Amino acid sequence: MVTETHFQKELEELKENLLNMAAMVEEAIQDSVQSLVKRDSDLAQKTFELEDRINKTEIAIDDMCLKLLALRQPMAADLRFITSAMKIITDLERIGDQAVNIAERAIPLSQEPQLKPYIDIPRMAEIAQSMVKDVLDAFVNRDSRLARSVCQRDDLVDGLNDQVFRELLTYMISDPKTITRAVHLMIVCRCLERIADHATNIAEDVIFMVDALVIKHHADEQKEKEGGV
Amino acid sequence: MVTETHFQKELEELKENLLNMAAMVEEAIQDSVQSLVKRDSDLAQKTFELEDRINKTEIAIDDMCLKLLALRQPMAADLRFITSAMKIITDLERIGDQAVNIAERAIPLSQEPQLKPYIDIPRMAEIAQSMVKDVLDAFVNRDSRLARSVCQRDDLVDGLNDQVFRELLTYMISDPKTITRAVHLMIVCRCLERIADHATNIAEDVIFMVDALVIKHHADEQKEKEGGV
Repeated sequence: MVTETHFQKELEELKENLLNMAAMVEEAIQDSVQSLVKRDSDLAQKTFELEDRINKTEIAIDDMCLKLLALRQPMAADLRFITSAMKIITDLERIGDQAVNIAERAIPLSQEPQLKPYIDIPRMAEIAQSMVKDVLDAFVNRDSRLARSVCQRDDLVDGLNDQVFRELLTYMISDPKTITRAVHLMIVCRCLERIADHATNIAEDVIFMVDALVIKHHADEQKEKEGGV
Repeated sequence: MVTETHFQKELEELKENLLNMAAMVEEAIQDSVQSLVKRDSDLAQKTFELEDRINKTEIAIDDMCLKLLALRQPMAADLRFITSAMKIITDLERIGDQAVNIAERAIPLSQEPQLKPYIDIPRMAEIAQSMVKDVLDAFVNRDSRLARSVCQRDDLVDGLNDQVFRELLTYMISDPKTITRAVHLMIVCRCLERIADHATNIAEDVIFMVDALVIKHHADEQKEKEGGV
């Protein structure tokens, strides 16, 4: 049982690393959008540095997962947990890329007059951040209810995106001088929408993972009743 | 050795399934862009159906990989190959989503006068398709040179995207009536750029996988020379 306990400790460490990576990603989203709102190029720079750390963390966790697969040869639930973790860190890394895209748009926008007050964009960012946080919590705690709530929030982000999109179109139509800035902002919104999509993708994986386990569990119970294995 | 041979057969089957999935994804890209170019809603519908098949194929291959991991407990190169396959099918599935996004834009665009001749967009699609094809070939043949050529083609797609983007901006500025159509086309281009990004992500994984093996191989040779294991 020593090996078993050691393996459990390694899985706990993996969970902790995943939550830390998610926290870095949340920070990157926040910094990128704040660099836009506060017109602060230092925060944009901080986003670029964070993304570099996120990329390195992805490689480290990926390596840890491979070692667990090779050395511990886990079965069933643990196996699915580790392979899901390997997919999830890819999504987290790409959310980091989206934060960089936002920060890259914030820089030219900060050099021109502000087109409109930023209300919906920080709101979208806040929801996207909460989705990243909750979906990782849902994953490590195998909580499909929380994962489902993340999927629902995706509709909120899509709704805000459509709203801002229409608003920006009105600006562009009424005054062509606003077009370049409006397009930058459309792309920022699209990045936030993509971030929410990544979180939703993870949530769907979590639901699939948890429900498959539930279905499998019931099937096993059934077999036991029938006297099988 | 019977088991070994059986495992090799299973790996060959996995490779074949991956190449089939990639072929479906290529077809989805082509159909979606042709639905735009030919203003053909049947092709848009075909894209939606293909995407559904792509999603089901992803789940089937994912399942196959899990079974290989659980039952064959592969080591080193085979282990990395299978976990990479699990990540790659996620990218392929998302390329399918992007093709659906393109087809969804093609439908409203086909109901309005065509804004401009479509030359660069089919060119982008063609390159993106070749990237998907080649990156999967690179993966199954562990060919990092081919994977590198895929990364280079990403710059071509980005270049074309920037070019179309600027052209569409000029349309929008000179005639506000074109804005809605131009925005649809901007989003189509962005989808194609995202497809190329997914292919590039896969290519980077392939390079990482192959080079890690090369480095590992050299390290093993060194150990052998030094009389170690």
